[in-house]
Amino acid sequence: MLIGLVAVGSELLTPYYQDTDSLFITQRLNDLGLEPSFKIVVGDEPENLKMILQICLDKADLTFVVGGLGPTEDDRTKETLAEVLQRKLIFHPEILARIEERFERRGMKMPESNRRQAYILEGAEILPNKVGTAPGQWIEFDNKKIILLPGPPRELQPMFNEFVVPKLEAWRKGYLYRRIIKITGLTESQVEDKIKDLYPHSRDLRVTVLAYPGQIEIHLLSLAEKESLAKEKLDPLLEALTQRLGDNIFSTTGEELEAIVGQLLRQSGQTLAVAESCTGGLVGHRLTSIPGSSTYFLEGAVVYSNEAKIRTLNVPAELIQQYGAVSSEVAKILAENIRLKSGASLGLSITGIAGPGGGSEIKPVGLVFTGLSWNSGTEVVRNLFLGGREQIKFQSSQKALDMLRRHLLKKIAGDKNENFHCN
Amino acid sequence: MLIGLVAVGSELLTPYYQDTDSLFITQRLNDLGLEPSFKIVVGDEPENLKMILQICLDKADLTFVVGGLGPTEDDRTKETLAEVLQRKLIFHPEILARIEERFERRGMKMPESNRRQAYILEGAEILPNKVGTAPGQWIEFDNKKIILLPGPPRELQPMFNEFVVPKLEAWRKGYLYRRIIKITGLTESQVEDKIKDLYPHSRDLRVTVLAYPGQIEIHLLSLAEKESLAKEKLDPLLEALTQRLGDNIFSTTGEELEAIVGQLLRQSGQTLAVAESCTGGLVGHRLTSIPGSSTYFLEGAVVYSNEAKIRTLNVPAELIQQYGAVSSEVAKILAENIRLKSGASLGLSITGIAGPGGGSEIKPVGLVFTGLSWNSGTEVVRNLFLGGREQIKFQSSQKALDMLRRHLLKKIAGDKNENFHCN
Repeated sequence: MLIGLVAVGSELLTPYYQDTDSLFITQRLNDLGLEPSFKIVVGDEPENLKMILQICLDKADLTFVVGGLGPTEDDRTKETLAEVLQRKLIFHPEILARIEERFERRGMKMPESNRRQAYILEGAEILPNKVGTAPGQWIEFDNKKIILLPGPPRELQPMFNEFVVPKLEAWRKGYLYRRIIKITGLTESQVEDKIKDLYPHSRDLRVTVLAYPGQIEIHLLSLAEKESLAKEKLDPLLEALTQRLGDNIFSTTGEELEAIVGQLLRQSGQTLAVAESCTGGLVGHRLTSIPGSSTYFLEGAVVYSNEAKIRTLNVPAELIQQYGAVSSEVAKILAENIRLKSGASLGLSITGIAGPGGGSEIKPVGLVFTGLSWNSGTEVVRNLFLGGREQIKFQSSQKALDMLRRHLLKKIAGDKNENFHCN
Repeated sequence: MLIGLVAVGSELLTPYYQDTDSLFITQRLNDLGLEPSFKIVVGDEPENLKMILQICLDKADLTFVVGGLGPTEDDRTKETLAEVLQRKLIFHPEILARIEERFERRGMKMPESNRRQAYILEGAEILPNKVGTAPGQWIEFDNKKIILLPGPPRELQPMFNEFVVPKLEAWRKGYLYRRIIKITGLTESQVEDKIKDLYPHSRDLRVTVLAYPGQIEIHLLSLAEKESLAKEKLDPLLEALTQRLGDNIFSTTGEELEAIVGQLLRQSGQTLAVAESCTGGLVGHRLTSIPGSSTYFLEGAVVYSNEAKIRTLNVPAELIQQYGAVSSEVAKILAENIRLKSGASLGLSITGIAGPGGGSEIKPVGLVFTGLSWNSGTEVVRNLFLGGREQIKFQSSQKALDMLRRHLLKKIAGDKNENFHCN
């Protein structure tokens, strides 16, 4: 079965916009064991739109057409399809009433232009829009299906889930099970070297590796006749990958590193303060992007200038003079002093050269020291990151959070062992 | 003239990847006054790829096909096009020599699979790849043009600029001039109300409004027979928009707000320190994303807990008890005290409720106070932002940076007036 996805909108043919609705629809199709065969983006001009709709009718069994159902003059999807199919547009008073009601509820009068949205292709099934004015339409023609959907994701997504997915059940090719493994501390090629012999050679069990600076993701996808079978098929692969990659994996369920670190801090009852130089506040920003982070994140000090390091965190001026602000020695004292000053149980520090300026032969751009201090010790790591300023900042924050994660994992394991010994 | 863009790759039909090469090609086409008529994404399976290539040959005068030129088995673009056009693939020893050389320079032996990349369609013009192994190909067929290009942006972009753009000159429809106006402090509908009567009704002068939480962008595009004419055509519109939107515009050349604030700080010789609560370090992160920000950004205090506000920035505990940590009073003292403590000439503060928890009827989620302190005064603004946690954090940072921008603009204008009076 050939499935086509069409996104309609002249703005999608500019350099500024991307069609993202197709990613959502693809995910839902994948859930049913289905995949799009092609995706097309076309503008609002009826001539090109007509050509594309005709191509889809010729080639695809199932076509999703998204966008161009609005009330304005440049929204022509419905009219163009009516022309291609040589069908009439039928006025539906009950749709008009619903649209008028929507405006009334907000104390507004419906603009005359919205009346157009009450017209539906002859023979089409209406897909109600609970959060907007443009209804969707399910159209059958010569054993082919064309589904018209509104473009705004907040209208499209609930409509698709509630009214389209049940109708697609008839074509379900299986049940899908998905897991996302996230890794830090290894490069893409290191990950591939460790796991490439595990790659399955099957369309029903797939591995996709996505690499970002400081983070590798492995997306696993399994398809089977039953949900439980899909999981059964994927689990041994997940297990094998987990064994190979060990504690470089920080999540097998898709969470970000800052969320995992937050869970571990909660679990171990520890609190955290952060001293940041080159990251400028990014670690604090990431930690506080997690709702409820105020239970474990106490304070951050963005000690960007040398004076700030000296005044705010009592870094001895001589230390900076002797070793430089970007040094293991300064990272160590930053981590220790932010911990002591804040009263947190853990102190994290970052000092480095994010570039593009400020590097030297001995201390190049990308040189970053990350430190962690706890009640009985301090650890400092020397890192050399590649990439532009933003990438170096992100990798620095990732490394610092990962040091914290590994420390907390050890601590939690240690506590368990202790309890074990005690009991 | 119909122009089609095709991106080839099965990964582009998953929910994880987007085709971005087409955005680059679109920008280059726009520069020549040209636009794509449609974009298609298709997987590597020869059957579907063949169907799409055939459609493009039927419909488009000029087709760009990106991707699927790699050395591995699943790269089939060239072979499939050869089949569609019924042309032979010709071995080019000089291309093989260049590929082998590339590997040798890195001390590696060329894998046998790369030999495939030395085959070129009969009659095709070779587009050299200076940073990778897959050459591009310019193919003419029945008065139609098909251009094969490698997928990796770092290979595609220089090849396109150096070898494709000059050949496209023959179809140039004009010269393009582009400006991007960035605005904060107004909503999308406020912006539209102010400017909608200025929208041009012309394909050669276009306005696109993009709305983000806390930021509106107006993209202006003008096309004319000469570069100078395109600018001349756009300038009056830019001027009119600038008049209507006044100092809500922070840039007419596309820079981010943190870059503009940085320029103004430099220009006025001022230094800055920041006290952040709900933004958790985001303002510091944004400020330090600008290279050279260390010349004006001294220090940040992420005083997330009440204890941190009290201990680090001497906020009186009674003040927090009386008014709450999220209050105008606390924002004021945070701004003042970070300024005094750091020795910076300006202090910026943010305290608010980013949600989703922590709100009340009197102090709902999204309530944020932003403060600015300078040598002779303090200003505090009460804001109520909508959206999720990330949006509230971003809008808070945007508002704080914008207060700073407006203050610096006034200060710079004042200094100029003073100079004027003195002379």
